[in-house]
Amino acid sequence: MEKLIITACLTGAEVTREQQPNLPLTPDEIAEAAYQCYLAGASMIHVHARDAEGNPTQDYAVYKEIKEKTAAKCNIIFQPSTGGATWHTPEQRMQPIELNPEMATLSMGTCNFADDVFMNTEANIRIFANRMNELGVKPELECFEKGMIDTAVRMAKKGIIKSPMHFDFVLGVPGAMGGELRDLLYMVESIPAGSTWTVAGVGRYQLPLNIAAIMLGGHARTGFEDNIYYKKGEIATSNAQLVERIARISKEMGREVATPDEARAILGLK
Amino acid sequence: MEKLIITACLTGAEVTREQQPNLPLTPDEIAEAAYQCYLAGASMIHVHARDAEGNPTQDYAVYKEIKEKTAAKCNIIFQPSTGGATWHTPEQRMQPIELNPEMATLSMGTCNFADDVFMNTEANIRIFANRMNELGVKPELECFEKGMIDTAVRMAKKGIIKSPMHFDFVLGVPGAMGGELRDLLYMVESIPAGSTWTVAGVGRYQLPLNIAAIMLGGHARTGFEDNIYYKKGEIATSNAQLVERIARISKEMGREVATPDEARAILGLK
Amino acid sequence: MEKLIITACLTGAEVTREQQPNLPLTPDEIAEAAYQCYLAGASMIHVHARDAEGNPTQDYAVYKEIKEKTAAKCNIIFQPSTGGATWHTPEQRMQPIELNPEMATLSMGTCNFADDVFMNTEANIRIFANRMNELGVKPELECFEKGMIDTAVRMAKKGIIKSPMHFDFVLGVPGAMGGELRDLLYMVESIPAGSTWTVAGVGRYQLPLNIAAIMLGGHARTGFEDNIYYKKGEIATSNAQLVERIARISKEMGREVATPDEARAILGLK
Amino acid sequence: MEKLIITACLTGAEVTREQQPNLPLTPDEIAEAAYQCYLAGASMIHVHARDAEGNPTQDYAVYKEIKEKTAAKCNIIFQPSTGGATWHTPEQRMQPIELNPEMATLSMGTCNFADDVFMNTEANIRIFANRMNELGVKPELECFEKGMIDTAVRMAKKGIIKSPMHFDFVLGVPGAMGGELRDLLYMVESIPAGSTWTVAGVGRYQLPLNIAAIMLGGHARTGFEDNIYYKKGEIATSNAQLVERIARISKEMGREVATPDEARAILGLK
Ligand SMILES: [Mg+2]
Ligand SMILES: [Mg+2]
Ligand SMILES: [Zn+2]
Ligand SMILES: [Zn+2]
Ligand SMILES: [Zn+2]
Ligand SMILES: [Zn+2]
Repeated sequence: MEKLIITACLTGAEVTREQQPNLPLTPDEIAEAAYQCYLAGASMIHVHARDAEGNPTQDYAVYKEIKEKTAAKCNIIFQPSTGGATWHTPEQRMQPIELNPEMATLSMGTCNFADDVFMNTEANIRIFANRMNELGVKPELECFEKGMIDTAVRMAKKGIIKSPMHFDFVLGVPGAMGGELRDLLYMVESIPAGSTWTVAGVGRYQLPLNIAAIMLGGHARTGFEDNIYYKKGEIATSNAQLVERIARISKEMGREVATPDEARAILGLK
Repeated sequence: MEKLIITACLTGAEVTREQQPNLPLTPDEIAEAAYQCYLAGASMIHVHARDAEGNPTQDYAVYKEIKEKTAAKCNIIFQPSTGGATWHTPEQRMQPIELNPEMATLSMGTCNFADDVFMNTEANIRIFANRMNELGVKPELECFEKGMIDTAVRMAKKGIIKSPMHFDFVLGVPGAMGGELRDLLYMVESIPAGSTWTVAGVGRYQLPLNIAAIMLGGHARTGFEDNIYYKKGEIATSNAQLVERIARISKEMGREVATPDEARAILGLK
Repeated sequence: MEKLIITACLTGAEVTREQQPNLPLTPDEIAEAAYQCYLAGASMIHVHARDAEGNPTQDYAVYKEIKEKTAAKCNIIFQPSTGGATWHTPEQRMQPIELNPEMATLSMGTCNFADDVFMNTEANIRIFANRMNELGVKPELECFEKGMIDTAVRMAKKGIIKSPMHFDFVLGVPGAMGGELRDLLYMVESIPAGSTWTVAGVGRYQLPLNIAAIMLGGHARTGFEDNIYYKKGEIATSNAQLVERIARISKEMGREVATPDEARAILGLK
Repeated sequence: MEKLIITACLTGAEVTREQQPNLPLTPDEIAEAAYQCYLAGASMIHVHARDAEGNPTQDYAVYKEIKEKTAAKCNIIFQPSTGGATWHTPEQRMQPIELNPEMATLSMGTCNFADDVFMNTEANIRIFANRMNELGVKPELECFEKGMIDTAVRMAKKGIIKSPMHFDFVLGVPGAMGGELRDLLYMVESIPAGSTWTVAGVGRYQLPLNIAAIMLGGHARTGFEDNIYYKKGEIATSNAQLVERIARISKEMGREVATPDEARAILGLK
């Protein structure tokens, strides 16, 4: 089995400092959180930027600052979100692709996201994918439903998305697919042979789905974007605390944790 | 095993007479198609209205005319769509509920629908459901993805949707869940015990998924809304031709076909 | 999708003329039944021999007579059973392999078979497989449980069984795996890519599982060994009547039926 | 979710002291190992007796001594094996039932077990079940294949086995069902609502399947009968070491571990 890639999703677009006092918001905070996660075993960060007021922004300059400040500390893989917040326009959302990061997320369809709608029309998916292809950015295909995998497979047949594909199953969002083990297994059994995958479980699904990924040969995303607790009723002290636990359990289960360069090899990053 | 309920989806919102010359469009044509399907074994019709130009409309008066003209011919169950076309507003879409039909569809989430987005926010689902509850209209819960079942289950726990629930799995829409047998089985295994279900397969998925429903104890939706062919390369001559085939195969497999009143008993309609 | 291979299991080891008056028993009767099934669309026969009293026998000479008499009528693929009856010794069971048929069954494990035990130890599986390999007989890997597939995969890794493998899932035997659609799907999802498979459903499972095979790209086994009824309460008039129905339904579902030579190409027979 | 029942399978019938130097063999050693496992979090022991030479025995007196010596130390649930070793006769195997333990295993079918055959005919299953029913011993239904669940369900319908049933899925035995996560999930999804279950994974499957049970609401069996390693290449120092790890991981995942009396309540023991 390949070594485990742990992705730290440090900030997200929805969590607030009121909910999670240790949430990194500024480029300096995010870069420092990235570094702590790197030390704890993460080989990739999934990044959402925030503006000076702490609100979600897809601003190119802010992502650039985060990217550079992180790179100054360690060689962790920088993966910006192109999802942004549900109210961002496609044009806003696309900005961090222009940083030419090694990876960026590409959401593969539209679904309800609690009381909002996360919009990703076919046309926009194509536009995002084409631009990533032009720049050589490998997409992490975010799938909130099984039909989004089907869309990815269909687009791969047309060459819009390159193979081997890397998926991120985001499970447990109210309005999209649940986060039971059988849900994860169904997703895993639906992707083409040769693909790689990560799972992001929302809230109480984060820990069990991360552990299931260890067993199944997938990879794990943990961090405050998806879950702010260490355990029931206990707010996590840092993103790194969550990363550390997954790294420890993975080793306990006999699976080594990948360094950033090992993750690059597994994912075929340039 | 319960008898098989065959629902005829006669018209839909997207098919044109250019594509399918035998498509019923006017209230008279729809009522006559309903009657022919009834004779062929259908116990329910799923109805989309069209205006004088043949364009989709959710107009109360047109649905009323279809309902009355159909009722004059036979006692088939009348189930109007509240989905309408992807560009209709929620207010437009809700109109046929006011006819107080025995059933009406209730789409349980948002997804891409080819190049369009089929919007059903949480708030609107609640509004539709509440109005159906007030009038005693039983919803057919249209699920295009597995997460929509999860939403239904969540809303049932809150009492927004009444149990036992009746689901319609719409599979094979580009942008939502595929139409393989394993997709259907996954949906079926995801609904609460005591629920009933129908499957609507789009295009080439219609026939195999209808037959799978016969085996699995579910129910079958067939008709031009989902598929215009009788077999590959051969346009169907009528909705009734499609109904007839399902009724024949069901009997061949040892499962009787329900009359409208038997369908009412199976679905617990008032 | 490949064309459908229909295998007729004409006689079996357990059915009696009292249960099924049209059961072929003598070599002449079996050859004639094979020919009628060939005309109805079968491209293979699965053969159990009977002695002069109608009891199961694995006698070389009787199989030889059946093989020759069938070959005189048509080019249908002759596949003798090496399972025999549950009380036959391994040595008895192996005899028809010496006829050097194109295929022969190879049962991949031990399980209860109603009140009997169907014994296939690891050692005997290896002995049977080795002899088939020596003679160039392609095994049809009979799996009554999922673990038998796992055994086949394990033996294939050691080269004891050659790939691509052809499986026969025998479902619905009391004491082994049931015959629900989900059981079949689980088996299908457990075999290596590139394998081919047939399903044999016992009793009331025969028809639905045969039809599921048509949908899923597998192949279908029908005949009196597995089921003696045409429909509930109605004894079938001949094996060919069962074959005919599967051929008809397959064509109706848009899948052509293979001739013996087309079946040979699909299965890679010499 | 119910608390986790950890069953320690201390000795088994096949492991030798050469393979695992810390294997408990005598009644004193087994009772002491049971006590250490109890302290580590186990609420049940699954017991195989050995004779003075360390060979498997189903002797009543030896089981009696183990039962009494264990009871003198703690209130852990005593569950003797009625499987014994593959060469024991049914009469030998049944002896520990006469001790009237709270539970005893009941193997639900026949399968290959590496180079041996583990024989459990329908007739013998009925005999074992009937005697357990007479004495009020709750069976732990050992299932090595999915078809064995089907047999249990069939026998439950006839009243031979009482409901709610408790299953033990033994996965990863060469010759029976494998030990992948999907295998476990398939088993879990095949038992009647209201049943409880434990999983025993053989060798390298022990740890991941135990953890999966924690997630899925099942229960976990660990110990030397199924696996002698703590991790790859490292022999475990005691059964208790394996129990301790499962207890720790379960708490880490937010699931409490059951005491013997809590386990009795969950299993409905008298
Ligand atoms: Mg969706
Ligand atoms: Mg077996
Ligand atoms: Zn994100
Ligand atoms: Zn519709
Ligand atoms: Zn046979
Ligand atoms: Zn045991």
